[in-house]
Amino acid sequence: MTSPALDVLLAYHRAWTTHDMNAAMRYVADDIVVLAPAGRIEGAAGFRQFMEPFSRIVTSYRRVAAFGDEDTAVIVYDTDTVPVADAPGAEAVRVIDGRIGWMRIIFDRAPFDAARAAAGSSA
Amino acid sequence: MTSPALDVLLAYHRAWTTHDMNAAMRYVADDIVVLAPAGRIEGAAGFRQFMEPFSRIVTSYRRVAAFGDEDTAVIVYDTDTVPVADAPGAEAVRVIDGRIGWMRIIFDRAPFDAARAAAGSSA
Repeated sequence: MTSPALDVLLAYHRAWTTHDMNAAMRYVADDIVVLAPAGRIEGAAGFRQFMEPFSRIVTSYRRVAAFGDEDTAVIVYDTDTVPVADAPGAEAVRVIDGRIGWMRIIFDRAPFDAARAAAGSSA
Repeated sequence: MTSPALDVLLAYHRAWTTHDMNAAMRYVADDIVVLAPAGRIEGAAGFRQFMEPFSRIVTSYRRVAAFGDEDTAVIVYDTDTVPVADAPGAEAVRVIDGRIGWMRIIFDRAPFDAARAAAGSSA
């Protein structure tokens, strides 16, 4: 079973998890719409501003499950990050012409907020 | 394409989203292991204590994407809840003998924490 949408999503993940955001952005549509925990992001530039800082703090990455069909794919993954260990994420995407045009990304902001508050209080 | 694991995950979702937790628990293994944002939950009783209160506050539910194979399935869904509008979730599950034996569930606790804090401060 092949899935064009999953191929794109996995290629995007291979790129950002190896800190190659230029390669990752080749799989992102210029007019991408992203529904993220903090709200809606429109456009590739804003999406890169959102993802690139996260990609820099990831210290380990493991795919839990990934599936797709012609135009839709989903992935669930675990990461460890510098401020937060055990920070899983999930994405559902729609792919158009080989690029991600829509993404719902889900993760728990609570431990990142707590880490930020702890860092601030010790400053 | 059929997926025994996805059939179980969708049946479980149909049950809890219609507030029938007794039916939902028929798809949950007695020794389920759940990796939730707040930590690890072991056993069906603990899992029910975790999910049933959430199922009661859901006011709308919409499946975004769901896929699976023989023993693994994933789902991404949007919900609105009494305290928090736009509260999406994602689950990856392993299914054994028709029941969910392992689940990684991902959602953002931050808006629920904020709603709880706001309710407390107005009390």
